[in-house]
Amino acid sequence: MEIRVVLVEPKYDGNVGHVARVMKNFGVKELFLVRPRAELGEVSIARAMHAVDVLERARIVSTLEEALEDVEAAVATTAVLGSTPARNPLTPWEAREQLADHGKVALVFGPEDRGLRTWEIELCDATVFIPTSEEYRSMNLSHAVAVLLYELTKDEHVPERYGRPATKREKEVLVGALDRLMRALGIDEVRRGNVRTTFRRFLARARCTDKEVKALLWILEKARRRVEGYSRSGDPGGDP
Amino acid sequence: MEIRVVLVEPKYDGNVGHVARVMKNFGVKELFLVRPRAELGEVSIARAMHAVDVLERARIVSTLEEALEDVEAAVATTAVLGSTPARNPLTPWEAREQLADHGKVALVFGPEDRGLRTWEIELCDATVFIPTSEEYRSMNLSHAVAVLLYELTKDEHVPERYGRPATKREKEVLVGALDRLMRALGIDEVRRGNVRTTFRRFLARARCTDKEVKALLWILEKARRRVEGYSRSGDPGGDP
Repeated sequence: MEIRVVLVEPKYDGNVGHVARVMKNFGVKELFLVRPRAELGEVSIARAMHAVDVLERARIVSTLEEALEDVEAAVATTAVLGSTPARNPLTPWEAREQLADHGKVALVFGPEDRGLRTWEIELCDATVFIPTSEEYRSMNLSHAVAVLLYELTKDEHVPERYGRPATKREKEVLVGALDRLMRALGIDEVRRGNVRTTFRRFLARARCTDKEVKALLWILEKARRRVEGYSRSGDPGGDP
Repeated sequence: MEIRVVLVEPKYDGNVGHVARVMKNFGVKELFLVRPRAELGEVSIARAMHAVDVLERARIVSTLEEALEDVEAAVATTAVLGSTPARNPLTPWEAREQLADHGKVALVFGPEDRGLRTWEIELCDATVFIPTSEEYRSMNLSHAVAVLLYELTKDEHVPERYGRPATKREKEVLVGALDRLMRALGIDEVRRGNVRTTFRRFLARARCTDKEVKALLWILEKARRRVEGYSRSGDPGGDP
């Protein structure tokens, strides 16, 4: 899915700048402005930060129809719920599922002061609603853009992970090391058994990584060697 | 899970106002400011819009430790990835799963110009990262707050739906109505069979609701009655 952001009659150029910035954050570059009510000046450029290119390439059109002409689907955003089809929206994650195999999709946002009108929503193929508190539903325009672009592109930018989930075998090596330390400390088998079980449960809940296991193993082995050194030499100082 | 938003050394009061607004949008009310560098003045009040109460109740503290004292877990946010444990983050949706059964959770954001330092991240129990484009990772502070609060509260504010998925039986009534219309139009059984199958596939893909089925049924039945009226009377005008 490739996303085009369409702002209908945006009122403040600062908001347009903020929208450009968050678009670039999520790798979205196509911005259409339908009859913008503010000139894009210094404020929008300052707010766009490193996304001035998105602003500069923005296309200004005079009707919403023009902005939607060549997309495969258009999604209207609304903060007003109701029982008509236009006001009976999808959640952002439902929209993501429905649009997953689409080509170009327009995401349409209304003006800051009134939102999209019903006839504008009816031009679109779906309506989406960000689940907000009943107490205060009206979001800042660029915040709404941020949330929807995050949801719709969330699978594209997942960072590479350092470390993988530890295997059962790796975790058992760690449990064994803890057991040897307890033995060196003279703890009896019944208590050792209880602590081993507690530790296994803890490791399972923590879903630890191979790196985490290695770091803990390093400490436990170091502690055991020191304890064994003490017992043998009676000398509390220095590394063995 | 109850969320506390912690801003470490925020630089611009306008940003703090924006953060207050988006907090209220997602029903989050507890804001802690650690050594804020700007006075909260007119700009922050204007940006907070209807969330001035969140701003007014914000607690100013002098250390991050103080802001985290009474929470069950603290989650640091970062835009900088690396191979150390502090910079090896969870995605927002992984954080949501891990925190689901927690009590109070602090969500900690660094200053606009430098983000959280490693020692600040190390005070927290987890690190979270918003998947962004490699080309431009640095998000506006209030945009990052918006995305994380959206993800962490997404199950709490889902709107009531109008309509439910249509049942197989309801969809078959609709297919039957289409079939009767085609019969009234004199279409032969082989073609009718093909169109019925096409229509069934289409209804399945569309995952239509009971309301949508009713609306289509209404049209199809109206059309069939009109067609049958024509055939009987030969009169092309008026309702039957």
